[in-house]
Amino acid sequence: MDKLLYGVAYYDEYMPCDRLAKDVEMMKAAGINLVRIAESTWSTCEPQEGVFDFSHVTRVLDAMEGAGISVIIGTPTYAIPTWMVKSHPDVLATTKKGPGIYGARQIMDITHPVYRYYGERVIRKLMEVSAHRKCVIGFQLDNETKYYETAGKNVQEQFVKYLRTKFNDDLDAMNQAFGLDYWSNRINAWEDFPDVRGTINGSLGAEFQKFQRTLVDDYLQWQADIVKEYAREDQFITHNFDFDWRGYSYGVQPMVDHKHAARALTVAGVDIYHPTQDELTGAEISYGGDSTRSLKEDNYFVLETEAQGFPGWVPYDGQLRLQAFSHLASGANMVEYWHWHSIHNSFETYWKGLLSHDFKENDTYRSAKVIGKEFAELGSHLVNLKKHNKVGFLVSNEAQTALDWFPIDGTAGGGGACKYNDVVRYVYDQLYKLNVECDFLWPETESFDQYDLLVVPALYAAPESLLQKINDYVAAGGHLFTTFKTGFTDENLKVFHDSQPHILDRCLGISYSHFTFPKQVKLSGETYHCEDNELKNFMELVNPEGAQVLASYDHYNWKRYAAVTRNAYGKGTATYLGCWTGDAMLREILTDVLKDAGLWGMEQEVEFPVIIKKGTNDLGKEVVYYLNYSPEVRNVIYHGTDGEELFGKAAVTDGQVLEIGGWDLKIVER
Amino acid sequence: MDKLLYGVAYYDEYMPCDRLAKDVEMMKAAGINLVRIAESTWSTCEPQEGVFDFSHVTRVLDAMEGAGISVIIGTPTYAIPTWMVKSHPDVLATTKKGPGIYGARQIMDITHPVYRYYGERVIRKLMEVSAHRKCVIGFQLDNETKYYETAGKNVQEQFVKYLRTKFNDDLDAMNQAFGLDYWSNRINAWEDFPDVRGTINGSLGAEFQKFQRTLVDDYLQWQADIVKEYAREDQFITHNFDFDWRGYSYGVQPMVDHKHAARALTVAGVDIYHPTQDELTGAEISYGGDSTRSLKEDNYFVLETEAQGFPGWVPYDGQLRLQAFSHLASGANMVEYWHWHSIHNSFETYWKGLLSHDFKENDTYRSAKVIGKEFAELGSHLVNLKKHNKVGFLVSNEAQTALDWFPIDGTAGGGGACKYNDVVRYVYDQLYKLNVECDFLWPETESFDQYDLLVVPALYAAPESLLQKINDYVAAGGHLFTTFKTGFTDENLKVFHDSQPHILDRCLGISYSHFTFPKQVKLSGETYHCEDNELKNFMELVNPEGAQVLASYDHYNWKRYAAVTRNAYGKGTATYLGCWTGDAMLREILTDVLKDAGLWGMEQEVEFPVIIKKGTNDLGKEVVYYLNYSPEVRNVIYHGTDGEELFGKAAVTDGQVLEIGGWDLKIVER
Amino acid sequence: MDKLLYGVAYYDEYMPCDRLAKDVEMMKAAGINLVRIAESTWSTCEPQEGVFDFSHVTRVLDAMEGAGISVIIGTPTYAIPTWMVKSHPDVLATTKKGPGIYGARQIMDITHPVYRYYGERVIRKLMEVSAHRKCVIGFQLDNETKYYETAGKNVQEQFVKYLRTKFNDDLDAMNQAFGLDYWSNRINAWEDFPDVRGTINGSLGAEFQKFQRTLVDDYLQWQADIVKEYAREDQFITHNFDFDWRGYSYGVQPMVDHKHAARALTVAGVDIYHPTQDELTGAEISYGGDSTRSLKEDNYFVLETEAQGFPGWVPYDGQLRLQAFSHLASGANMVEYWHWHSIHNSFETYWKGLLSHDFKENDTYRSAKVIGKEFAELGSHLVNLKKHNKVGFLVSNEAQTALDWFPIDGTAGGGGACKYNDVVRYVYDQLYKLNVECDFLWPETESFDQYDLLVVPALYAAPESLLQKINDYVAAGGHLFTTFKTGFTDENLKVFHDSQPHILDRCLGISYSHFTFPKQVKLSGETYHCEDNELKNFMELVNPEGAQVLASYDHYNWKRYAAVTRNAYGKGTATYLGCWTGDAMLREILTDVLKDAGLWGMEQEVEFPVIIKKGTNDLGKEVVYYLNYSPEVRNVIYHGTDGEELFGKAAVTDGQVLEIGGWDLKIVER
Repeated sequence: MDKLLYGVAYYDEYMPCDRLAKDVEMMKAAGINLVRIAESTWSTCEPQEGVFDFSHVTRVLDAMEGAGISVIIGTPTYAIPTWMVKSHPDVLATTKKGPGIYGARQIMDITHPVYRYYGERVIRKLMEVSAHRKCVIGFQLDNETKYYETAGKNVQEQFVKYLRTKFNDDLDAMNQAFGLDYWSNRINAWEDFPDVRGTINGSLGAEFQKFQRTLVDDYLQWQADIVKEYAREDQFITHNFDFDWRGYSYGVQPMVDHKHAARALTVAGVDIYHPTQDELTGAEISYGGDSTRSLKEDNYFVLETEAQGFPGWVPYDGQLRLQAFSHLASGANMVEYWHWHSIHNSFETYWKGLLSHDFKENDTYRSAKVIGKEFAELGSHLVNLKKHNKVGFLVSNEAQTALDWFPIDGTAGGGGACKYNDVVRYVYDQLYKLNVECDFLWPETESFDQYDLLVVPALYAAPESLLQKINDYVAAGGHLFTTFKTGFTDENLKVFHDSQPHILDRCLGISYSHFTFPKQVKLSGETYHCEDNELKNFMELVNPEGAQVLASYDHYNWKRYAAVTRNAYGKGTATYLGCWTGDAMLREILTDVLKDAGLWGMEQEVEFPVIIKKGTNDLGKEVVYYLNYSPEVRNVIYHGTDGEELFGKAAVTDGQVLEIGGWDLKIVER
Repeated sequence: MDKLLYGVAYYDEYMPCDRLAKDVEMMKAAGINLVRIAESTWSTCEPQEGVFDFSHVTRVLDAMEGAGISVIIGTPTYAIPTWMVKSHPDVLATTKKGPGIYGARQIMDITHPVYRYYGERVIRKLMEVSAHRKCVIGFQLDNETKYYETAGKNVQEQFVKYLRTKFNDDLDAMNQAFGLDYWSNRINAWEDFPDVRGTINGSLGAEFQKFQRTLVDDYLQWQADIVKEYAREDQFITHNFDFDWRGYSYGVQPMVDHKHAARALTVAGVDIYHPTQDELTGAEISYGGDSTRSLKEDNYFVLETEAQGFPGWVPYDGQLRLQAFSHLASGANMVEYWHWHSIHNSFETYWKGLLSHDFKENDTYRSAKVIGKEFAELGSHLVNLKKHNKVGFLVSNEAQTALDWFPIDGTAGGGGACKYNDVVRYVYDQLYKLNVECDFLWPETESFDQYDLLVVPALYAAPESLLQKINDYVAAGGHLFTTFKTGFTDENLKVFHDSQPHILDRCLGISYSHFTFPKQVKLSGETYHCEDNELKNFMELVNPEGAQVLASYDHYNWKRYAAVTRNAYGKGTATYLGCWTGDAMLREILTDVLKDAGLWGMEQEVEFPVIIKKGTNDLGKEVVYYLNYSPEVRNVIYHGTDGEELFGKAAVTDGQVLEIGGWDLKIVER
Repeated sequence: MDKLLYGVAYYDEYMPCDRLAKDVEMMKAAGINLVRIAESTWSTCEPQEGVFDFSHVTRVLDAMEGAGISVIIGTPTYAIPTWMVKSHPDVLATTKKGPGIYGARQIMDITHPVYRYYGERVIRKLMEVSAHRKCVIGFQLDNETKYYETAGKNVQEQFVKYLRTKFNDDLDAMNQAFGLDYWSNRINAWEDFPDVRGTINGSLGAEFQKFQRTLVDDYLQWQADIVKEYAREDQFITHNFDFDWRGYSYGVQPMVDHKHAARALTVAGVDIYHPTQDELTGAEISYGGDSTRSLKEDNYFVLETEAQGFPGWVPYDGQLRLQAFSHLASGANMVEYWHWHSIHNSFETYWKGLLSHDFKENDTYRSAKVIGKEFAELGSHLVNLKKHNKVGFLVSNEAQTALDWFPIDGTAGGGGACKYNDVVRYVYDQLYKLNVECDFLWPETESFDQYDLLVVPALYAAPESLLQKINDYVAAGGHLFTTFKTGFTDENLKVFHDSQPHILDRCLGISYSHFTFPKQVKLSGETYHCEDNELKNFMELVNPEGAQVLASYDHYNWKRYAAVTRNAYGKGTATYLGCWTGDAMLREILTDVLKDAGLWGMEQEVEFPVIIKKGTNDLGKEVVYYLNYSPEVRNVIYHGTDGEELFGKAAVTDGQVLEIGGWDLKIVER
């Protein structure tokens, strides 16, 4: 990238009146230099089977090219037209709930040949009219692709073939690996394979979900291969990944293996939605950024984020700007709003864009004007920020699916509320608040050796090879911090039957046979002093086997067990958190871990709500962001070599106080 | 009407033993002069297809005629017999949930020819044996008719034809009006019309619901036309409308357009159920009465209300009588209980009647005896009460459906808890507590000019003509009070794209582009002093454009916006409430509005729990009710010309203190 | 029985590795003398249709026989193999939700001929290889059998035949009994019988559920008849009944009439699961024990109970032992854990056994070693404990089903939270805490005469004959304690139309026509002094008609009604509780009832958490358990003839203080 991209999704198709010229004028005034178009517009592009009409696309391309605004072409495939469903109702995904019904987006069987046939044709036609255009800088494949619970007969037959391959046609091996003897679920002939939608076997069920995730990989690769036939060298191919959704972007997306799916792309893209107003913390921006940057180990695109968003997210003064720069601080090269204008009909009417329904200048748009100007002025200092993180954060779709089958605070057949992403965010957010920047790692990451500290939350299901790799990492001098529910089952969700945590018991110097739910249990011992000392959700009754006990349980019946331990192993150390503490207590525990790993620095002395993020820019200089996620002014003492504050163009020297306004930021280049 | 009707629903069919003679005796002792029969008794009247047995009907007619008790014949069509479903299972309504299953009432496709065929035949047969009878004073068509979510293939095909007519076969017009381009929902051939049950497009979905409401209009007209062939001049045709149900009668019925459907009737009828005991406020009686009286702009029937009702509603001493007279005070000419006896089997066993299951005299029945006696004695003074209200209250099924698609406190895809009726009752109930009597108005009401004050809660969706009519009303000297979420979309749920509120921005002198959910936000300014000053659910960030700001927001980020405004426009004024306040605060705001409109009088000085209601009786005299909805004695100073308190036959003079007992009332005629 | 049985469920099939020899060794070390095998292993025993492989069964029999461990053979029928469903999908029960889907256990139509055909064959094959084995001491038929909501066409046709028999083909009689005229549900030809799954008629619906319960009786008898062909004289036939499940064993099982179903058995068996840790009270052990002991009026088997159970149940030190002896104290001859090892895959991974997944010695296993040793040493004193209870506790599946259709705190169509079992446990648990041991009685119990006190909670639906029997019991000198919602409907859920409570109004000397939900209502009067005096859920407005009023209502509108009454009738007394009090208040009321019945003794002076249970052993001596359900030491004064404390082998004399440790017990034989 040679500049920061500041963009909006633009739907000429949805306009209640002709707005194009006026919109371009207002975009220019706001420094918008990018629009994403065509995504989800299939029924306009191909109003009837085989009848194509790209007039909306062409007229927008003409207007944008004229105005010097870049364009991303989104393939229109994530919402299907009525004519396709009318003629071929079985393109709708059959799920646990039965056959589908037309209406929403993302309701099709992404493997269905009819859908693929029409999809390929419309993509090719769209490419033909757009790919060669100068203003088109890249392509977005589909949008927020997932597998949509597709589980029809065709999909299940593919799954059985997948299993035959995985187990070399050996049914005994499968029955053993999945424990199918339980409740008479054993399959003694492939012909007997039951409808997997009803299975209660977590191993089989999780394997099916893993298989379903591969459908997303295949699907994006299929689109990428088509698009590549038309794309120029300078045009990127990206996708708009999204996260587990809890009313906002929360954590690991259970229906897509982002790391695998990203192989089809040249640049990783993502949408990040998050609370604002009093709840704006920057944590989701940081989480989503660290995660997406790590997919291709490079800068990434924020293809969608909120402008006004839904009514509860209308930004306070300063917040839209703070958010935009927060994305850059994590390594984004693009901030693109969903969307330019607020939609006047249908469904997402209250998911508002930069403009409200009245198309007038408003407070949000006025904030964008400031941002656009600053992006243009400072872009060369901020684009292509490179990170040099010393902490790796390991996440796993397999562990997630496994814990979703067996919730931490649940019981047999009874779902619990604590899911994998709750542990991920419990740990990630405290690192974030300690100003520790992370790279994300996945089970297939080749080596952890470049990191001084490896953080592993709830790696519940893992192949032995991964556990061995972690163990070796410690032996070789690494520092490990891992939590309860790690190393419990293999990749088939079979609980290891020697000891828990499996293999990692070596580096951790512990084992346990029992675990329970804490009721009025606290940590005891001399190590930690946090007043927020009440455990919740889950605790393991850990037996130290060589490890140093950092904390035990303050409870008459559990006091003989360890809660937090540390073990010197080989050249490294491994810290184990056997229970779910409060957030402040975890920060204290992590503080100690960081010190042990030699990672405690001046940034960690600065407390949230001020967040510090760093990287190296194209000029070879270090850029340091000071982001204030609070309405009050915060003073921070600057540490480091002399530099320049980029907004104020003022020199900054070591020891100087930086005053950061409420919902404001400062950027020092040095 | 020449007398007050005091009645019960009576089901000889349901009796566990022969009770008719004893029941008639007990009715006479209680002053019961009316029974409603035959409603929902199809399987007894026509035990097999084409086999009719009206012996229960005839024997009750004989007994009632002998005792001088009037009878309403209910057509039996709202519950269908087993034989019909066995032979024609598709008479059951197909809904979003799929095909129906036999069991409950109100489960049929009210448009289905099979159902219509059998329905017409049983109605005619019933008319033949009953319509000519002297005791029969009128007919009730069906019962609590709604459209029961009917959405089968036949209904959807009718809907498409309806749309072709509405849009003159112009698909582009429909796609544009409904915004179907969004998420590729565009329909480019009528043959492609998708199953509407799955639509996520609020415009299309709301239009389907509007169409479904017309099915109810057609259905009632169909029954009325049949019944009219048999009815005498002196016999009325009514229907038992019901309201949005929240465990009791709450607000506008979303599945019926009462105003339209009432065209088939000669007298409007309704059921009103409400909490009692500590929760008896009279608000539902007043709301239901004002609404139903306004349908035909005449007196109305309370065809069903609770005697004991369900266990939590057993009336305290005095309450049954207070309730009965409260209905009269709103203009009812009939109070009829559902039902005479408590049912011994099936489903509504705990929806108890005047008599409990033991058929014995009980406290509730003893209360009815008092009421029956007073109705007989005072009836000529109380019947045919005419209202002369100065406040009009505008409600709209279209606005309701629209807000149910886009809940006020919701977001895209996420349902909120605040619905249209919550706003309606939020406003209505405070007017009620200020002793302001209203007439109900609907979008098709020709003129608002007879009212000094027009109250318009959350008129979210409205055609421009209606908004223009309201604007003109103010210009001509009217006083308008309207709230947030008014004038936001057109009748197709397309958000107006010029400014909000559309057209009304002229009379209101405001506009807004932003809205959000209040968190720790209060009203600021000098106008209001209520201590209950915390906003909830929703707030608009209003820009005054000529209007006087009556209150702003007490919040660091929103303080520059207006919350409550008033604008002088033409000869009138228009007050806008941009946020959801507490109830007491709204009363203060309305107090100010009433004063501005010149409607503040002595009645408004009297505070709830004493409610005052007035009207003119057949003798040309004014009748004033003083109703005490509390267990404590309340003293009210009487204002007005000398009159007579009807219960005590005592003279009443201006300035005199009226002592009203707990759960008691006084009536002054003057 | 000649010894106590201490056992585990053992599944060689589920093992991740060959553990048999090691497991037997660890069992022997823990005093385990029994295993249950084969239950739910159909897919391993019959991997393909007609192909049998009992190698797991045989090798376990060999190992156990060699080790002197007894074996129960469970028929494998409660989970069906994939091949059966693939070929015959209609063996899956069709329920209200439609056709079934393969996956879980307990999903079949237990009446289906295909299932029965294959089921009989696999049982016979299993019997052939196992029944003759010396170590096999008995058989368990199926497991936790219920009717699984089976309601397919075939089942409904059987139901109609059942009704034709019940009503002698007289449709009028059925329509009258069930009140089908209501909402036009009348059935005028058997051919018209509607799909009963949709019925809203509680009488019809409850009759269907009663019919479904008979399917369970038939099913177990069918299996018993097969097994009997192979069983030796010395081998028992049992079944593992379970209870209404609320996360643990709670109360009467609505889907099985235990009393009827037990006719197929020679020994009653049950599973009892319950909270532990701070929530261990012993109440479920006592409830389940009293109930199951009463089925065959003899000692019973606890075929399943938790070892570790789910994570929240990991026992505190001492609890596993306290639980084991608590079962014996109620008359169990067996304590068997579900299960030996924790399962490594599938579904119940977190329902842990004696061993954790790591198969290592752990705290729970170590507790079992203590128990096994004590069972062996003291068994001859504890086995075959016989009870001589003076209190009978009447429960009824018919009353339960009826109240589940018409919840106590519900209304028409609106479900309430208070169900039959809430009343059952409300009463049972306070008797338990007063150290009153009960026998369970059922409607068909021939005579109540052997009991000094009959306790009848919420006998909502009952035939007149049963009510007459209770009335006669009082007349003959019995003492009755009964509650609200008793004697309200007949066996067809038709409310009695003379008076409530029907027939019992004679012995109780009361009647009532009204009932409501208490809001800030307390008991008034001089009889009770409990400070926990707030009513909840339900209250009847009782008119005393001869009865003494023990308490009235403290509420301005209800104060004239009685709340608790007692009546002398014939030679006995009858106490009525017309409202739902707090637990402590109920204990005070029951204290008074016990004193009135002459049942107040020294045991009642001892307060929970110390529970005393008694019985006579094979040596003709009385055995007294003192069980301490708290972590603190409790001192109890011993009363009675001199005896010996069995654990400490110490003499015990009258007046001596027994010190009972936290979560510990003492047993005195005298």
